[in-house]
Amino acid sequence: MNMNDIIIKKRDGGTLTQAEIRWFIKGYTEGDIPDYQAAAFLMAVYFQKMDKTETFELTNAMRYSGDTIDLSGIRGIKVDKHSTGGVGDKTTLIVAPLAAACGVPIAKMSGRGLGFTGGTVDKLESIPGFRTSMEPEAFLRQVNEIGISVIGQTAHITPADKKLYALRDVTGTVENLSLIASSIMSKKLAAGSDAIVLDVKCGHGAFMENRQDAEKLGEIMCEIGRAAGRRTVAVITDMNQPLGHAVGNSLEVIEAIETLKGKGPADITALSMKLAGIMIYLGGRVKTAAEGEIMARQALESGAGLAKLESFISRQGGDAGVVTDYSLFPQAALTREILADKNGFVHAVDARAIGAASQHTGAGRATKEEQVDLSAGIVVHKKVGDKVSKGESLASVYTGSRSRLTNAEKEIRGAFTLSDEKPEVPELVKEVLGL
Amino acid sequence: MNMNDIIIKKRDGGTLTQAEIRWFIKGYTEGDIPDYQAAAFLMAVYFQKMDKTETFELTNAMRYSGDTIDLSGIRGIKVDKHSTGGVGDKTTLIVAPLAAACGVPIAKMSGRGLGFTGGTVDKLESIPGFRTSMEPEAFLRQVNEIGISVIGQTAHITPADKKLYALRDVTGTVENLSLIASSIMSKKLAAGSDAIVLDVKCGHGAFMENRQDAEKLGEIMCEIGRAAGRRTVAVITDMNQPLGHAVGNSLEVIEAIETLKGKGPADITALSMKLAGIMIYLGGRVKTAAEGEIMARQALESGAGLAKLESFISRQGGDAGVVTDYSLFPQAALTREILADKNGFVHAVDARAIGAASQHTGAGRATKEEQVDLSAGIVVHKKVGDKVSKGESLASVYTGSRSRLTNAEKEIRGAFTLSDEKPEVPELVKEVLGL
Repeated sequence: MNMNDIIIKKRDGGTLTQAEIRWFIKGYTEGDIPDYQAAAFLMAVYFQKMDKTETFELTNAMRYSGDTIDLSGIRGIKVDKHSTGGVGDKTTLIVAPLAAACGVPIAKMSGRGLGFTGGTVDKLESIPGFRTSMEPEAFLRQVNEIGISVIGQTAHITPADKKLYALRDVTGTVENLSLIASSIMSKKLAAGSDAIVLDVKCGHGAFMENRQDAEKLGEIMCEIGRAAGRRTVAVITDMNQPLGHAVGNSLEVIEAIETLKGKGPADITALSMKLAGIMIYLGGRVKTAAEGEIMARQALESGAGLAKLESFISRQGGDAGVVTDYSLFPQAALTREILADKNGFVHAVDARAIGAASQHTGAGRATKEEQVDLSAGIVVHKKVGDKVSKGESLASVYTGSRSRLTNAEKEIRGAFTLSDEKPEVPELVKEVLGL
Repeated sequence: MNMNDIIIKKRDGGTLTQAEIRWFIKGYTEGDIPDYQAAAFLMAVYFQKMDKTETFELTNAMRYSGDTIDLSGIRGIKVDKHSTGGVGDKTTLIVAPLAAACGVPIAKMSGRGLGFTGGTVDKLESIPGFRTSMEPEAFLRQVNEIGISVIGQTAHITPADKKLYALRDVTGTVENLSLIASSIMSKKLAAGSDAIVLDVKCGHGAFMENRQDAEKLGEIMCEIGRAAGRRTVAVITDMNQPLGHAVGNSLEVIEAIETLKGKGPADITALSMKLAGIMIYLGGRVKTAAEGEIMARQALESGAGLAKLESFISRQGGDAGVVTDYSLFPQAALTREILADKNGFVHAVDARAIGAASQHTGAGRATKEEQVDLSAGIVVHKKVGDKVSKGESLASVYTGSRSRLTNAEKEIRGAFTLSDEKPEVPELVKEVLGL
C-alpha cells in the first residue's frame, strides 16, 4: 500500500477498506508514515467524511495501536464516564464516588487537559499528596477493595490517538465527527470498562456548538460502543454557560466536595444525579436509570458519596482533611472581584470566554509542557437568569500575577451580557441516547 | 499570524490576504512552518480553491522566495518556452535553436524531470561532454554571442516552489489549478525572460485530462504573466498519444536533430513550427505569429536551426559530431521489437502507459536521487490512424536489463489498441490563448 494513493482515494470520496485504515494507523503510529501525509489525509477526511464502517474501523485500529487494559480481575460491571469537555465540568469528581458508594466499581483512567483548565488528573493533584500514577496490580486491588480508583493515562494506551490528536490540533482538522468519535471511543474501549456513560456537551463552550451535531456525535459513539459489546449511553447537555460556579483546578475540587455535601450549585447537582443514576443502572445495581438516580440522591444525602471520596483520597496518598478544611488546597496569590457596572438580569455567560479567562489565570495549559497553576481560576457568582445589582460581584478571579489578573478580568467582563428582562434559562440535560 | 488559523480560514472557504499568503510562503521556505501544516493547507486549497487574486499573490510570493534572474544584460526581447509535461515532448530542443536562428535570444533554465523521462537538462546531458551548469556571467555572454543558452535551474530559484512541489507530490495535492499555475509561473517569472510561450498539454498523458481544464490552466497562466508585465501565450495541444516517435533521453535528442534536418515526424514538426512561430513573433522579429511560422520553416529548411543547435552544443562543451553520428550517444545494452499480433489500424496509443513503460526502461526517475539511463527509452513506430500488419513492429524498446525489458514490453502492449476501421486522428494544436 501507498499513503499517497490512500490520501487520493479519500480525497476523491472513496470508502477506505479495513486493511487500508489499519495500514495507515500502524504506519503512522510506528513513524513510517510522516506527519505531512497524515495531515493531508486528515484534511481529506474533514471534507469527504468517513462512513459508519470506516469510523468503526478507525476506532478499532486506534484502540489496538497500543496496550489495552484488562479489568477482568475486578468483580462486577465496571462503568466508565467521559465528558467531551466543557468549562467548569467537575462531574467525574462527584459521580465516580457516588456510583462507587452505590456498589458500581470505578476503574478509571483520566487525562491531563489542554485548554481552559487541567483535566481530572490535574484537579486531583491539587489535593496535597494525591498520587495519580499506580502499578496495574495496585490499581485493580484498590478497586476491588474500596470500589474506586482514578489514575492518569499510561503512555502505552492508544498511542495512535495521541499522535493524531496532537496533529489535528495544529492542522485545522479537529472538527470532524468521525475523528472526534474515534478518538474518544478508542481510548474508552482500550481502558476496559464494561459500560460507558458519555456526557456530550453542546453549545458555545463545546466542540459541538449545535444540538444536531452533538446528537450525531452521541449516536455514533453509542454505536461504536455497542459494536464493541459495551453498553454505551450518551447524555446531551448544555455548555453555553459554565457548569456550576467554579472553573479551575482546586476551585473545582472544592465545588465537587460542596456538591457531595449537598450544598452544590443546582445545575451541577442535577447533572451529577442524572449521570450517576445512569452509571448505577448500567452497573446493574437497579432496574432503571430513574431508580439509579434515586439511589444516587440517597448516597448524596446520606453522606456515603462524600465518605467514598475521602477513602479514595486517603488510599491514593492524599490528605482527606481537604474535605473539611479547604485552606489545605494551594492558595492563589491574588484575587479580585469583578463587579457589575449596572442593574439587570444575566442574559448570557459565554462559556468559551470564561474558559479563555481561566486559561489567562494559569489554570489551563496552552502546550503540553506548560505547568498548570492549581490554585488559579474563576468563580462565577451570577449565572443566566440571575438578577444583578450594580456593584455586586459577577465573578472572583484567583491567580498568581497582576498581568494574568488584568487579562482574565477583560475576558470575564466580555463574557457577561446583562439585559433588562429575565431571560429563559437553557435546559441543562437535553436528551439521553442509547438507554 | 498563526498557521492553524490560516488553514482553518481556507478550509472554511475564506479568501486569504496578500499578507497571509506571503507570511505562509516565507515561513514555509525558511522552515518555520512545518510540512504537516503546509500539507493540511494544500489539501484545504484543493477543496476550497483559490481565487484569481490569491493565485496571483501565491505566484508572486513564490517568485520572490529566492533569487530572480536579471536578463537585462542580454540585448533584445528574451522569449522563454515551457511545456506542462507530456510523453515524447522534445520541442524545446527544436524550437529553441530555431527561434535563436531567427534572432530571438533564448536564455533558458530547464529542469530535470521526475516521471516518464528526464527533463530537458537530462536530455542535453546525453550529448557527450555537454555542460548544463554555468556561471551567470558566462550564461549571459553566451546568449549575447550565439543567441542561445540552456542551463539547469540553480538551487536558489523559487525554493518555495521546490519545497511545495515535493510535498504536493506525496500528499495527493498535485491536481489544483492555482497550485499548478503558480508553480509554473513563479519559476518562469523568476527566470527573467520578457515573453513566455506555454505549451499546455491536454489528454490522458497530461496533468489536465480534459480540454476545459487545460484551457482554464492556460488562461490563468496568461493572466498571471500579463499581470507581471510579461507577454504570455498558451497553446493547448493534444497529449493522448506520445508526441513524435521517440520517448527517452538520447532517443529524443536524436529525433530533435532529425526534425531540424527536416526529417522529423509530422506531429512534432508541425507543433515545433507553431511554437517557434509564436516565439519569433513575441520576440519582435515579425508582425504576426503566422509570419513567425513562415520564418521558422525557412530556418528549418535552410539548415539554420540545425547549425544553431551545433554551435549551441559546441559552446556548452558538447560533441557536435552527434548531429551527424548518432553512435556517439550512449547506446542501450538491450533492444527488442514489440510486434503486432494482428492486422488493423492503431486506434489509440495510451500516452500514460507509454510514459510508464519509458520509466520501466530506466529513462525516467521515480525519486530525485535516482540516476536516469540516458540510452534507455522507446521508439513508437505506429501512431493513431496508422495501418498495422500482423508481425510488424509497433515499437522498439531500449534498456539495460532483461527485467526492465519485460516490464516495459508488458506496458507497451497494453498501450496499443488496434481496431478494424481507421479512426479519426486527434487534432494536435487545439487552441492558442493570449495572442
